[in-house]
Amino acid sequence: MKSKTSQLIYEQIANRLTELIERGTYRPGQRLPSVRQMSRRQAVSISTVLQAYRLLESRGLIEARPQSGYYVCAPSRNSLPEPEISSPGPDPCRVSLQELILMVLRDTLNPNLAHLGAALPNIELLPVERINRIMAALSRQSGRELHEYQFPPGLESLRIEIARRSAMYGCSLSPNDIVITSGGNEAIDLCLRAVCWPGDIVAIETPMYFGTLQALETHGLRALEIPTHPRDGISLEALQFAIEHNPVKAVLVISNFNNPLGSSIPDEKKKELVQLLERYDIPLIENDVSGEIYFTQERPTVCKAFDRKGLVMLCSSFSKDISPALRVGWTAAGKFKSQVEWLKFTSTGAATATLPQATIAEFLKSGGYDAHLRRIRREYARNVSLMSQTVMRYFPEGTRVTRPMGGFVVWVQLPDTVDSLELYKRALAGGIAITPGYVFSPTNQFPHFIRLNAAEWTYATERALEKLGEMVKELTESAA
Amino acid sequence: MKSKTSQLIYEQIANRLTELIERGTYRPGQRLPSVRQMSRRQAVSISTVLQAYRLLESRGLIEARPQSGYYVCAPSRNSLPEPEISSPGPDPCRVSLQELILMVLRDTLNPNLAHLGAALPNIELLPVERINRIMAALSRQSGRELHEYQFPPGLESLRIEIARRSAMYGCSLSPNDIVITSGGNEAIDLCLRAVCWPGDIVAIETPMYFGTLQALETHGLRALEIPTHPRDGISLEALQFAIEHNPVKAVLVISNFNNPLGSSIPDEKKKELVQLLERYDIPLIENDVSGEIYFTQERPTVCKAFDRKGLVMLCSSFSKDISPALRVGWTAAGKFKSQVEWLKFTSTGAATATLPQATIAEFLKSGGYDAHLRRIRREYARNVSLMSQTVMRYFPEGTRVTRPMGGFVVWVQLPDTVDSLELYKRALAGGIAITPGYVFSPTNQFPHFIRLNAAEWTYATERALEKLGEMVKELTESAA
Repeated sequence: MKSKTSQLIYEQIANRLTELIERGTYRPGQRLPSVRQMSRRQAVSISTVLQAYRLLESRGLIEARPQSGYYVCAPSRNSLPEPEISSPGPDPCRVSLQELILMVLRDTLNPNLAHLGAALPNIELLPVERINRIMAALSRQSGRELHEYQFPPGLESLRIEIARRSAMYGCSLSPNDIVITSGGNEAIDLCLRAVCWPGDIVAIETPMYFGTLQALETHGLRALEIPTHPRDGISLEALQFAIEHNPVKAVLVISNFNNPLGSSIPDEKKKELVQLLERYDIPLIENDVSGEIYFTQERPTVCKAFDRKGLVMLCSSFSKDISPALRVGWTAAGKFKSQVEWLKFTSTGAATATLPQATIAEFLKSGGYDAHLRRIRREYARNVSLMSQTVMRYFPEGTRVTRPMGGFVVWVQLPDTVDSLELYKRALAGGIAITPGYVFSPTNQFPHFIRLNAAEWTYATERALEKLGEMVKELTESAA
Repeated sequence: MKSKTSQLIYEQIANRLTELIERGTYRPGQRLPSVRQMSRRQAVSISTVLQAYRLLESRGLIEARPQSGYYVCAPSRNSLPEPEISSPGPDPCRVSLQELILMVLRDTLNPNLAHLGAALPNIELLPVERINRIMAALSRQSGRELHEYQFPPGLESLRIEIARRSAMYGCSLSPNDIVITSGGNEAIDLCLRAVCWPGDIVAIETPMYFGTLQALETHGLRALEIPTHPRDGISLEALQFAIEHNPVKAVLVISNFNNPLGSSIPDEKKKELVQLLERYDIPLIENDVSGEIYFTQERPTVCKAFDRKGLVMLCSSFSKDISPALRVGWTAAGKFKSQVEWLKFTSTGAATATLPQATIAEFLKSGGYDAHLRRIRREYARNVSLMSQTVMRYFPEGTRVTRPMGGFVVWVQLPDTVDSLELYKRALAGGIAITPGYVFSPTNQFPHFIRLNAAEWTYATERALEKLGEMVKELTESAA
């Protein structure tokens, strides 16, 4: 309880300071009160103030200058507010983006591009050597148990480890609540199929990860986009309105660090969301694949933590933080668990491959996972902050950029005159892969947005952003 | 060409002798002409006659007695003809067998049962040590390439090996024709989704592997069962009639060693099937998962070998002969390849796990696969033959049993008074798992059939069959 309370206090301080900076009370270049002063003034501990300042740093609002204190960042920051809340139309629609997504995926395979496009984790930050050692040891020491037919729900040792960790984000899952899947995408795909039938309406946050939009399309589901704020996620008012006016069969959110939006639904709002859907008896499919990659002090909770009726279907995976090529994800699908398990059996005929499951179970059990997570959180926080700052430096006025508190993607709203598909083409010709906003909405709500992958930060990344900024300027000017 | 012709000749001879034995021209206990006599009489080589006799042996019709020659088997053989051709009704129907299948699958996990139920490969016949050594070596020697994000169609090195082997069954696939899947079931599931939409009609061989019936059910497809002969598979006349009277969207067959029926479509008939479907422009989903486990001298071809218009979607996997827990299957889906690739991406978000793919590629490349296959073919041929003979010995008159030329399941038609679900329950109480015929037809065409897994042959297997035979007798008598 204690640490929960102190987290709230430092977040409150940081949010208040953010407001003061954005309103100009603290101006760029100005020094903030020292940690000691602020501690006295707010009657909180030194460490709480330090946490608040670090949060502001990771938001790119202030910077520490050695021996001197914390300063509000360069003026151009003010020209780059967060993107506006999304405001899609009120009607559900069928999804069709296949061609464009295939194009974007093909870019990923081109080794000659600067890869700001696909949201792949930085392979340098995966525990490759450790995982390879575990796989080698398991293969050497094991016999036939690695090759016996396995049925869903999947390896018990892995389900035990996942259940154990669930306390960290407010759940108390049992191994029996969990079904292992082939990555997070299969988890979401199976959950959708468990509660929907072709033609059904699914209310989603918008923008939304295009892989999920594709799952909707291939199953003939209709997406109903709900306005979503870049900081705190889906609008509950808009969602309630949508539910009251449409036969919504399921709701789908990326509760922590939405891809591409970076939004996270605050804990209290998660609870309200779950209660709202309980009133209407509508299942919630919750994507938490990036939940472990948080930049704040504590793991954010999940909606599942507030689930009393078994309506929340929590989906996650180890693809972002351990290995995308092991293809291990999972879902805790509440009262739909048996149906998900059955669909898993009918679609892939058995459990996910055994060795990848056993490998992750061993990694989680042996205790290296948390130290690994601490390391990659620091790296991604730094890279995301650098990405935001660098966009700020090189992109023209009228650009807006997110300041996500986790994950590793940044969502950029370009000036209204810039078409992201045109920019995508120019960037590609210039050796840079980006993801145009088109693929994140079935009704094309984001023609002036791009998503940038901030997983890796190198000199080449910075040069690519500089070049990209020039292109955006050219497009702005040619339109003027 | 030469070996192709001689195969046909020895098969012709064996089939003629089978007829003569079944009509009683050669009677039980009688000696067949010696190999030398038969060679002169038929004007064929000694080795061709030997092949024909071996085929009859594996059909359980004759037996070799050392120093003496070949003799027609015991009289009870005549009371066990092959099951009749299936004769389902003419209307398509929705599929619903979930409960019963779950029950059968749960049995598989019970270590106290004699497992004649699920069609699992014999783990003693999997190359477990070799595969574990390869996995260990790859894990030790590899770096990040085992963990990079992979998109469909899957690992090129594996697709190259699969393409190379395709010549053995009459195809000339290129690596680009192939999409790697999570086992054979996913291959079939994706192919169905690529060409059908909920409500569509799929014509299938009946009986049909229940996993495929479940894929049809979960996608809301209607199955139209086509009469299928236990020896040569789907009836082309019935299929044509069905196509002319229904909007059939796809046809699905297990072309070699149907599970559970054991039927194999002869090469010439495969060609006719493909040509028939070409005329109506209907895709053929071809399941060949057991194609490598043949008891004849040569690998049977596949329908895909006769595909000129890209309508045949060949599906296979390495689950039966290498490891069911690596979850590696594949499909060569002809002109639907891109759609299958796309569905694979949207349902599992990426390729199948990398290490299992790389492991199988290495096993295929290093040349141990064919020697391994030769070994397991001999074992399975023996076990299947023993299973047929033992059913013959212990089951009452009126029982019919298949004599499959590959795979490892046997399909038993019980006397009409015996309900297979009743037998299933009694067998379970007696510590024996079997699969009742109910799960192999969505319209319950096979209430008096059971499927037996002949993958393993031990003393316990024989005792279990003896016990099972007693139960069948009791059920027959209690009905009389």
